[in-house]
Order: sequence, then structure tokens, then C-alpha cells
Amino acid sequence: MTPISSLGEFGLISKLTAGFPKFHSSTIKGVGDDSAELNAGGKQILVSTDLLVEGIHFDMMYTPLKHLGYKAVVVNLSDIYAMNAIPEQITVSIALSSKYTVEAVSEIYEGILHACNAYKVDLIGGDTTSSINGLVISVTAIGYAEKEKIVYRSGAKEGDLICVSGNLGAAYLGLQLLEREKRIFLENSDVEPDLEDEDFLIRRHLKPEARKDVIQFFDEMNIVPTAMIDVSDGLSSDLIHICTQSKVGCEIQEAYVPLSEEMYQRAIKFNLDPITCALSGGEDYELLFTIDNEDETKVADHPDIQIIGQVVNISEGKTLMTKGGNKHQLTAQGWKHF
Amino acid sequence: MTPISSLGEFGLISKLTAGFPKFHSSTIKGVGDDSAELNAGGKQILVSTDLLVEGIHFDMMYTPLKHLGYKAVVVNLSDIYAMNAIPEQITVSIALSSKYTVEAVSEIYEGILHACNAYKVDLIGGDTTSSINGLVISVTAIGYAEKEKIVYRSGAKEGDLICVSGNLGAAYLGLQLLEREKRIFLENSDVEPDLEDEDFLIRRHLKPEARKDVIQFFDEMNIVPTAMIDVSDGLSSDLIHICTQSKVGCEIQEAYVPLSEEMYQRAIKFNLDPITCALSGGEDYELLFTIDNEDETKVADHPDIQIIGQVVNISEGKTLMTKGGNKHQLTAQGWKHF
Repeated sequence: MTPISSLGEFGLISKLTAGFPKFHSSTIKGVGDDSAELNAGGKQILVSTDLLVEGIHFDMMYTPLKHLGYKAVVVNLSDIYAMNAIPEQITVSIALSSKYTVEAVSEIYEGILHACNAYKVDLIGGDTTSSINGLVISVTAIGYAEKEKIVYRSGAKEGDLICVSGNLGAAYLGLQLLEREKRIFLENSDVEPDLEDEDFLIRRHLKPEARKDVIQFFDEMNIVPTAMIDVSDGLSSDLIHICTQSKVGCEIQEAYVPLSEEMYQRAIKFNLDPITCALSGGEDYELLFTIDNEDETKVADHPDIQIIGQVVNISEGKTLMTKGGNKHQLTAQGWKHF
Repeated sequence: MTPISSLGEFGLISKLTAGFPKFHSSTIKGVGDDSAELNAGGKQILVSTDLLVEGIHFDMMYTPLKHLGYKAVVVNLSDIYAMNAIPEQITVSIALSSKYTVEAVSEIYEGILHACNAYKVDLIGGDTTSSINGLVISVTAIGYAEKEKIVYRSGAKEGDLICVSGNLGAAYLGLQLLEREKRIFLENSDVEPDLEDEDFLIRRHLKPEARKDVIQFFDEMNIVPTAMIDVSDGLSSDLIHICTQSKVGCEIQEAYVPLSEEMYQRAIKFNLDPITCALSGGEDYELLFTIDNEDETKVADHPDIQIIGQVVNISEGKTLMTKGGNKHQLTAQGWKHF
């Protein structure tokens, strides 16, 4: 028998979904991008779904239920934005064990409501059920876009510029901080958590935001990226997804990868390499996208979009140019500094 | 703190989803029917989602993985048919612990593929992730219908006829059989399971079918039911949903509730009341619907549709007329014979 770890998540999904038929002309695009794409005669419809499992995706020791509800919604909306579409509806299914009270599940829904209000999405359905142990949240988000505006992972072409919004690695450092405090607490429950001045990093992990504003900026500036993905697995891994699906290579510059000051300082204190955290951290929910180089001036003045490199021929591979001028291969696990 | 059991599933959902806003004109109908309804400029879009949890919805001791994959899809399709719509796409998310191998999850997907082929639906996405323990499957189904054809739970009116497809209670008896064999096996693993001649009941539980054929029959016969729901909680409970949402009463006849011979015999052997099993068993995934009495002749000759009663004024309550001519209140837990 084959352990699932031998295939990995993406290998498993490829294996499982290979050979499924396509019956309907309403199915425009299935498995393989941030969202699926449908058409029912009007606008294109985008559908994305995620399953968050206690003990795997979140730890109840340090995850406030309200933030959990918020995050479960936001990570799905992020997948719709990553298609250059606007989410309008969500369904939320929750399985929870008897240790959870009505008050607890109400707190989760408070967070869901908060996300619905912040991103203007309608809760349209779901399922609420028991579990033997632990909490599972499954969210499906539904969005809409004009056909011409939808952006896949597969459209990047040689010469395009590679851009990323916001900054990277902070969510990962936030998680490391929370894990450290958990270890300390488990050793000695009298020690007060020391999370002062770490609000930014912790918020990036516990209560991420999706970049609706960037999608609105594209619309205002008449930009349609050539390819796009949200940074959930980490910059390296997600950029490799774009390259693979677009059949291109890439060259990014270490010096241009956006890092926050808080992330940089905390990484140093933890004896971690900041650029590795940015490349491999994941869960930042920033948008990674490629644009035609004619659009360079349109993004140049945006304070929160950084051009980090360019799309090259597939034969040139996928590389990171360090500040010292050395070229390293990008790997899905992120580039190892040493 | 309030235990969730004090509210029940429907009470909990009402409490949690009350006060959520509706921002979009594309949201036609949210929580409260078999599916949500959306519009993106073309046909109406129906969305339904279900979460199946190991130990709650299925027992790995007697549930073949292939059947589980099949059933997870079918129960969602059933919700789309119950809107008089045709499902065309599904997403499937699975969380599974390390005890599951690639071969195991492939078997689940074989069942999913089988359902996709049987019902002509496209798998368009999902999520595959680990869990600490146990298996969770979340399926979202998406279907389409012309606006005029969509059937809600809320449209039944006085004088309408109450109809049900197929027969009821068999899935419940199938489950009782499997539970009995499990108990016997746990007491003595040398005893061979005695499930001879029980294929029908066991299949009704492990591998239910959704009534696509009935929806096609409606289309051919130009019938648009006034209200419809699929029988997942049990005839009583689901009929009460229709009555509550339609603000009507109902009177059904014990003599007309369709029971299979296999179910009847097995109930007697188990010392259970067959009609109680039919009223409260659940998981039959038959369609319960009301039609204008002018459509009576259209359904009269259908071999697998039974008229079981009629819609009455709300003041007359929700009742079952026994074969002996006594009137009993229908309750959500089903009518207790003694």
C-alpha cells in the first residue's frame, strides 16, 4: 500500500482527478487553477473551496474562534480574487464535536459575518453537523467576472514582469511565534505569553486579508494580468505553479522580494533567513501575478505592488538572483540559503 | 454555556445565520431550502453542499470506500434535483488521516467517478488535506434551471396533492441490519455476517440513488410541482419543512405511504413498526412534492410515484390518518405508533 505522503498533495490530486469526464458546456475550467470556472449564459462563474481541519490547519490553543471563521472565508475569497474575479457568495459547512457549545460556534459565525461584511459576500448555505472529535470548516466561494477579464495561472509569457502585492513571510513568522508561546505554555503554564509588539506578525497568521483592493486597482487601471495566483503555499511554490502551467521560466531578484521590517527582525531573532521565510513561508494570501511589460508604468507607482523579476524562456529555468549576484534554482520547498 | 443539542441542527442554523446581510442581486435565495439559488445573467444557478464525517455519517467498519464516494456525491445531487434543477458540476474536498493510503483514497474517487458518470456531472475542483483522525468528505453540487421551473419548499397550497417517489424506510432498515452485524462481529469475529437476501435494504443505505428520472418525468409531462424536498430526514420531518415554509397543513394516509416488501418484512422481524420506519427513517433520497390537483392525471399512471395525501389549511394541522381511521399528529421525530 502506498502512503499518501509519497505522492504529496498535488500529485495525489492529479492522480485522483485524471480521467474524470467533462459532460457540460457550462464547465469552462475544472481542477488546476485557483478556482473552477462555469458559465450559465451570463457572466463567468468562479467556484473555489477549502477544507480547514483542527490540528492540521489551525490549533485551538491559540486560534480565537472568531478569527478562525474570518480566515476560513478570506482564504477562499483570495482564490476568487486570484482569478481576477469578485466573490459574491459563500457556503459554510462546519462539523464540530460535543466539546463545542452554541457560544463557541456562534463566535465562529461572528468571524464569518465580519468577513461577509468586510468583503461584501452573501452567506447562502451550508451544513452543520457533529464530529467525533475536532472541528472542520469547509467554505465554498462563488464569484463572477467578464470572460475577457479572467486570469489563469497559464497565461504568463516571456518578457512579462513578475509582481507581488504586499509583503511576504510575515504569516509564517506569526505562526512560529504562536508555536513558541504554545511550547513555553505547555512547559510552564504560569509564564505569561510574550507577544508584545508582535501584533503585525500574529495578525498576518491568524487574520489574513485577501487583496480585493488589488483587483479593484486592476479594474481602475485597465490592467489584466497575464497570469495570477494567490500566495498560499509560498512564493517559490506558487511561482513554480505559474511557470509550469504557462510553460515558461522565471528569474526573480532577491533584492526586490518585499519583506516587512517586523518579519525581517523577527526572522533574525529566530535565527532564520528572512528571504527563505518569504520564499517558502506561505499563507500570506498576497497576489502573485505577471503583467505585459507595457503595463509596467501602470503598476510602478502603486505603493503596495513590487516588480520582483521577469518571465523568461522555459529553457532558462526558474531562478533567484541573490543580492550577491549568484543564481539559485527555485524549488517548491523554497530556496535554501546555505 | 449552551450545549448544541439543546438547539438541534435546524435551530442552530437559524440562530447562526440570522442577521447575515445580502449584498448582491445575484443572490436569489440563500439558506433555507435544499439548495441556494444564484443568477449571473443566464440560467438560475443552484448550489448545495454537504459534509460527511466518519463516525457520524458513516462507519468505516461496514462502509466500502467506493460506495462512500458515490453516496457523498448522490446526496448532494439529490438536493439540486429537489429544486427541479439539473446538477452539472461538483467540487469534492476530502480530509483524511495517515491511516488512509493512496489506494484507499483512490477507491473513494472511483465511487465519485462512478456517480459523475451515472448522473453526468463534472468534477471541477476541491481540496485534499490531512486530518488528525478520521475521514471527512465535503461535496458542493452546482445545478441549473430556468427561473420558472425552480421549485421551493414554500409553494404548496391548499388542495394540492402530496406525492412521494419510490418507497420509504428501506435505507433505515439497511442501516439497522449493518449495525446488528457490526455488534455481532464485535462480540465474536468468527461469526460470518448474515446478510443474505438483504441486498436491497443494504444498498438503499450504502449506495442510494437520487431521483433524476423523476425530474426528467416532470419535464416531459410539463409538471412543475408547487413545492418539493428530498427525503433525507424522514417523511414526517421533511413534510413538516414543506408545511412550515408554505404556511399550510397536511393530511396524509397511512395506507398510501409506499413501503417495499423487503422493508416491511425486515421491520416486522426487528419488531419495528413499518410505518414508523417509513415516516422517520430518513436517508431514502426520494422526492416528496406537492402538485396542483389539476396535474393528478399526469402522475396517476407513473408506477413509482404515489399520492399520499393532500395539503390542507394550516388551521387543520399536520396529520396522519391511520388505516384504522384515527388521526395522529405528525411530529418531526415521526409518528409513534404506540
